[in-house]
Order: sequence, then structure tokens, then C-alpha cells
Amino acid sequence: MTLYEGPIFRVERRDGRDVVVHAPVAAVVAVDLDGQLNLVRQRRVPVDASLLELPAGFIHDGESPLEAARRELAEETGLHGGEWAELTTFFTSAGFTDERVHLYLATGLHRGEATPDDDEELEVARFPFADVAHLIDEISDAKTLIGLLLLARDRHL
Amino acid sequence: MTLYEGPIFRVERRDGRDVVVHAPVAAVVAVDLDGQLNLVRQRRVPVDASLLELPAGFIHDGESPLEAARRELAEETGLHGGEWAELTTFFTSAGFTDERVHLYLATGLHRGEATPDDDEELEVARFPFADVAHLIDEISDAKTLIGLLLLARDRHL
Repeated sequence: MTLYEGPIFRVERRDGRDVVVHAPVAAVVAVDLDGQLNLVRQRRVPVDASLLELPAGFIHDGESPLEAARRELAEETGLHGGEWAELTTFFTSAGFTDERVHLYLATGLHRGEATPDDDEELEVARFPFADVAHLIDEISDAKTLIGLLLLARDRHL
Repeated sequence: MTLYEGPIFRVERRDGRDVVVHAPVAAVVAVDLDGQLNLVRQRRVPVDASLLELPAGFIHDGESPLEAARRELAEETGLHGGEWAELTTFFTSAGFTDERVHLYLATGLHRGEATPDDDEELEVARFPFADVAHLIDEISDAKTLIGLLLLARDRHL
């Protein structure tokens, strides 16, 4: 039973519980050919703050998670090419939403021209790979914390 | 403007965007006196799966995050006492919800009797501290990934 339907999610009642039904998301830990970690800073209305996050976006119907990750990364930052590996997938808050994030690591990325959506106000921020361990303390976005903690663990940063 | 109001969240329109307004959450990386990590397994209707998670729950009005963390841990697992430290706070999915998680590390916890809510079907699962690094691969809940990755980093597991 649908209780509310909006442009980016709908609310359904399932087994007596309210559930926010949300498209799955692809997100990328993006390291370019210069060894820089590429994040995006964007204003997030729900939390009334500007957050530093992994490039990410909805997986469209008919698109694989990896295709969505490559498309979103190119749109938001212009980065393309490189080598890709899946890091993990997780649920953002399984108590009330089915939203799932597919997380990738992309390295050796080539720079290019970003083509953000009109409704996205993004600023790309680059950080030396060696600074990732310190950067973690400044992150308050869940997917970005997970991506950078996995990167720091796997690269012994 | 409120678009939908339900028992565990409401939907508001802010700056032209739909926002799920959700109570803040307190979650605990809980290590008992025997050096066991205590997680809870519970069925999550939104994702139609049983997930292994940190003990966690809503922060009630008038309660501090730490008070909520201690109360929820005792209710869900019976664990109490111990030494407490704040690990981090983060937003679960800042694109559509204001939900924020306050994450604590509690060590040297004493065992006791759990008193779960009637609507909570929880099973406590204990893991040797040394197994945390492997356990991370089996976790698909964001707050639990963050908590265990921080623990593994800080304790060099």
C-alpha cells in the first residue's frame, strides 16, 4: 500500500511498518592518475549543511550498478577510464528504507569535463592519497566514511 | 510543509525537496568483559532480510545521545557498566533524510538480562574480538560497517 509518492522516493506500508522505497545508489572512491582522491562538496537540504562526499547517484532502470557508477562519476567530476573494482554493498538505514549503496574503487582515472545536472550544485575537491587517513575525521556522510575507511585499510594508510 | 506523518518518521517539503524527518539514533560497538563483540541479529522489513547490526535505537526527547546508547544497549543485550567513548557521528543518507547516528565504543561491559521491546525480535550474537576483521565482510548495515572498520583501525585488527 502506497502512503505517499514523491519525486525521489515513495512511502509504503509493509508488514505494518512504514518503508521509504528508494532507488539504489552507486558511489565511487575515485583516485585519478595523479594519485589524488576526488570528492564532491554539495549542499544537502535534509541536514542543512554542505557535505564532503564520494561522487554518487541513483542507478537508473536498466542500468547496472557499475554503469551507473561510471556515468555518475563522469557527470559529476569529468573523470573517466581507469581500473574499477567493487568494494562492498550496504543498506544505509535498514530500519526504515530499502536504499542500498553499491560502492566501487576506481584508480588511474583520466580527467575530463564535468556535466552536472542543472539541480546539482557540486564542487569537486581533490586530496592527496596520503591524506585520506586524516580526512576521515572530517567526513560525516556514511557512504564516504565506509569508502575511505576501506581504502585506508586496504592500502595501509 | 508536512506531506506525510507516520509512526517512525514524517515527510516534509523543504526548499522544494522531499525530506524524511527521522529521530537521531545512538549505536554502540559493544565489547564485554570477556573480550567478545556483541552484535544483534534482527529482521528488517524494508530490506526483507535479517541483518547483523550494532545494538542501536532512537534517541528520545530529553535524552542525551550517550544516555540513549546506554539504555538501548541494556534493553537489547543486557550489557551495562563499562567504559564509554564517542567514536563519531554521521548522516545515514543526507540526500533524502536528516537521520544522524551517534556512534559509541563501550568496553569492559558486564552481562545482564535483556529487556527488548515487544515489537523487537532480536538475537544477540557474540564474536571474539580477534574475528572483527573477518566479520566486516559479512556486514551489510552502514552503521555497523563504520563501527567495525573504526574498531579494526584503532585496535590494529
